[in-house]
Amino acid sequence: MARRLLQTVACAVALRPPHQGLRQPTRRPATLAQPTTTTVEVDLGDRSYPIYIGDGLLTEDAATASQYLQTHVKGSQVLIVTNEILDRLGYTQRTKAALEYGDSGLRVETLVLPDNEEQPSEATKTLENLGKITDYAIEKALDRKATFVALGGGVIGDMVGFAAACYVRGVDFIQIPTTLMAMVDSSVGGKTAVNSKSAKNMVGAFYQPVAVVADVGSLRTLPDRELASGVSEVIKYGLIRDAPFFEWLEDNIEKVLERDSEALIETVEASCRNKAEVVALDEKEGGVRATLNLGHTFGHAIETKAGYGTYLHGEAVGIGMHMAAKMSRDLGWISDELFERAVALVARAKVPIVLPLDSPLDVASFESIMAVDKKVADGLLRLILLKGDLGNCVFTGEYDRAVLKETLEHFCDPENRSN
Amino acid sequence: MARRLLQTVACAVALRPPHQGLRQPTRRPATLAQPTTTTVEVDLGDRSYPIYIGDGLLTEDAATASQYLQTHVKGSQVLIVTNEILDRLGYTQRTKAALEYGDSGLRVETLVLPDNEEQPSEATKTLENLGKITDYAIEKALDRKATFVALGGGVIGDMVGFAAACYVRGVDFIQIPTTLMAMVDSSVGGKTAVNSKSAKNMVGAFYQPVAVVADVGSLRTLPDRELASGVSEVIKYGLIRDAPFFEWLEDNIEKVLERDSEALIETVEASCRNKAEVVALDEKEGGVRATLNLGHTFGHAIETKAGYGTYLHGEAVGIGMHMAAKMSRDLGWISDELFERAVALVARAKVPIVLPLDSPLDVASFESIMAVDKKVADGLLRLILLKGDLGNCVFTGEYDRAVLKETLEHFCDPENRSN
Repeated sequence: MARRLLQTVACAVALRPPHQGLRQPTRRPATLAQPTTTTVEVDLGDRSYPIYIGDGLLTEDAATASQYLQTHVKGSQVLIVTNEILDRLGYTQRTKAALEYGDSGLRVETLVLPDNEEQPSEATKTLENLGKITDYAIEKALDRKATFVALGGGVIGDMVGFAAACYVRGVDFIQIPTTLMAMVDSSVGGKTAVNSKSAKNMVGAFYQPVAVVADVGSLRTLPDRELASGVSEVIKYGLIRDAPFFEWLEDNIEKVLERDSEALIETVEASCRNKAEVVALDEKEGGVRATLNLGHTFGHAIETKAGYGTYLHGEAVGIGMHMAAKMSRDLGWISDELFERAVALVARAKVPIVLPLDSPLDVASFESIMAVDKKVADGLLRLILLKGDLGNCVFTGEYDRAVLKETLEHFCDPENRSN
Repeated sequence: MARRLLQTVACAVALRPPHQGLRQPTRRPATLAQPTTTTVEVDLGDRSYPIYIGDGLLTEDAATASQYLQTHVKGSQVLIVTNEILDRLGYTQRTKAALEYGDSGLRVETLVLPDNEEQPSEATKTLENLGKITDYAIEKALDRKATFVALGGGVIGDMVGFAAACYVRGVDFIQIPTTLMAMVDSSVGGKTAVNSKSAKNMVGAFYQPVAVVADVGSLRTLPDRELASGVSEVIKYGLIRDAPFFEWLEDNIEKVLERDSEALIETVEASCRNKAEVVALDEKEGGVRATLNLGHTFGHAIETKAGYGTYLHGEAVGIGMHMAAKMSRDLGWISDELFERAVALVARAKVPIVLPLDSPLDVASFESIMAVDKKVADGLLRLILLKGDLGNCVFTGEYDRAVLKETLEHFCDPENRSN
């Protein structure tokens, strides 16, 4: 893998080890010898857990998959929750077979939630569907020692994670993310939630899984647009804290989009490692963890106004990162050159970087939606902005309000939108 | 207050200090000089909080109440959630006035949930109503530093506590319990939850308030039946771990039912102290905390089968304690004399001690409902049973199944029911 190893720049927000040249597997279940498997440990004291990353962990065979899954089930009951699409692709059966492999004695229940073209996925992330999961668990008489398995993308992960946090006030859960976005974002950090009618992720819990199994093999069935959305999210790790990873992406982003096995593993591993380091420093988002939301305050407003389903998360975040980068440049906090590199890489991820002409968003909508962002404290909107050399950012409420206004005006101006 | 001070018997489940002869106020807000005010500290490390207990804390005047409430609000936004009955009695206005007293600068929003004769209160403790609370908070643009105030009985406390646990993944909440049951049970321990259609408290969180203000003055507006339900719950503290308190109740239970101010304060203080000690040892109910559920496994089955609203919690628990005591006696674990004292005191609380003739409960229903009790682990039903002298109990799955069966048969037999 070609990669420039640059000197690490001091990070404004957290300790930041350089992007490692060679991936070293740090831990794996006994008896396993898969050379492409690596593990990121999320270090959260007694709530620490491993993220297994590899190609074929789940999709290769039941014997392989069983070793990643069975180790982390402490009781005798398991509930797999997934959606219709993944179920049709055979993932439910594979996961069930892995859990039952070798006469494990586990009782495995499955709940397949609807997922169809008519209803965007985010619109299914509701308290009502949360109730369907917990009602099903009650119906199947699952007790405190049961383990929930979230098999799917971010919507399944967030909702099943929250269901696990709440069911009998907390049962174990294992996450099997099947989208790049879920692997690089929701699999680390324990942010679980459902949406309200008017705002995303407003009702939820901080709740950690007992293990994450990220099989990049499952990304082969992922639509291109979903993959691009995940790649957009990944770029933020480079921008906020990992310059070498940003530069590796500049060299390899097309390989990732072509689903090259090694490039995907590298991407997931670097993203999870970066996020795990931040979360270990700040589990409950008191400060540094908020930096993971680069472009997200703008992005959430874009998603909210458009209605769930118009944008994929990484698409809205792509525009949001562009907005944050422009605002940072206009504040004089980063150079023109860094601004242009950031935007160019986001564009290469094949996500939009400006609002479409038909978007209903205007400055007033941006402002009113951002006023209820979770990062508002006592009425003050704090933003994540880039500052300094590549790989540095700040989380602050101290910025020139006029520049925020200008940024919103610039992106809402029809002149700066795309067809 | 007349009270026999007996030698403390060794407790099978936890350290158990003797019931104190004189109440010593342990802490109170500065400048306050109310002789009847006492404080129980719930010791949970960085989640510790005080329970203020007195007569008139909220109902006396805004200046008094403001000191208990304002101290514990860290941001500038407050949401009081209550129900129609309490709102009509003027409690919402009193609480709002106390929070705004002295130009506090707090923005106080209020949400009054319906509570009427047609719909039993427990039936309103749903995910749907939880969503109403969080939607209202979003509508009012409440942020992470907001404080929720749960003003009401156990239903309001459980639901608003859970809403606070979930809203933007956790905001502060203050509990103002207005029923004896809420003061002695749900105000300590951070068990928050909503019900599912088929089972109580299956979806929730462990989440601690920042303070509890228990004004026994508010019990003067409580219906007799609700008061009796709370007194029934109180008896369990004597049975499981506090023999002197049990004996004090034997001498004073009628005073409590007559709403004597001192007797009520004594009852709430002893109950909160006992529960706080247990919860401090075992916040997440790994073991000893389960003992607080004496009679509750049977009681929950009775409530569930009858449908929400037929029984008050303490009424079902009264029958449940009778069943647990009888089963303990039949196992040979307690004496006939202790069994009779226990049942006699529950009867004096003016709650039922046997099932009514028209109850639809039979042995099979008991068994199927108890099979999904939260205390079932890997299929084994563990029960809280009395064992040894007064004030001792065990939480165990090791008991003769035949005696459980006989107990269920005995109580389901029409011969042993009441009209």
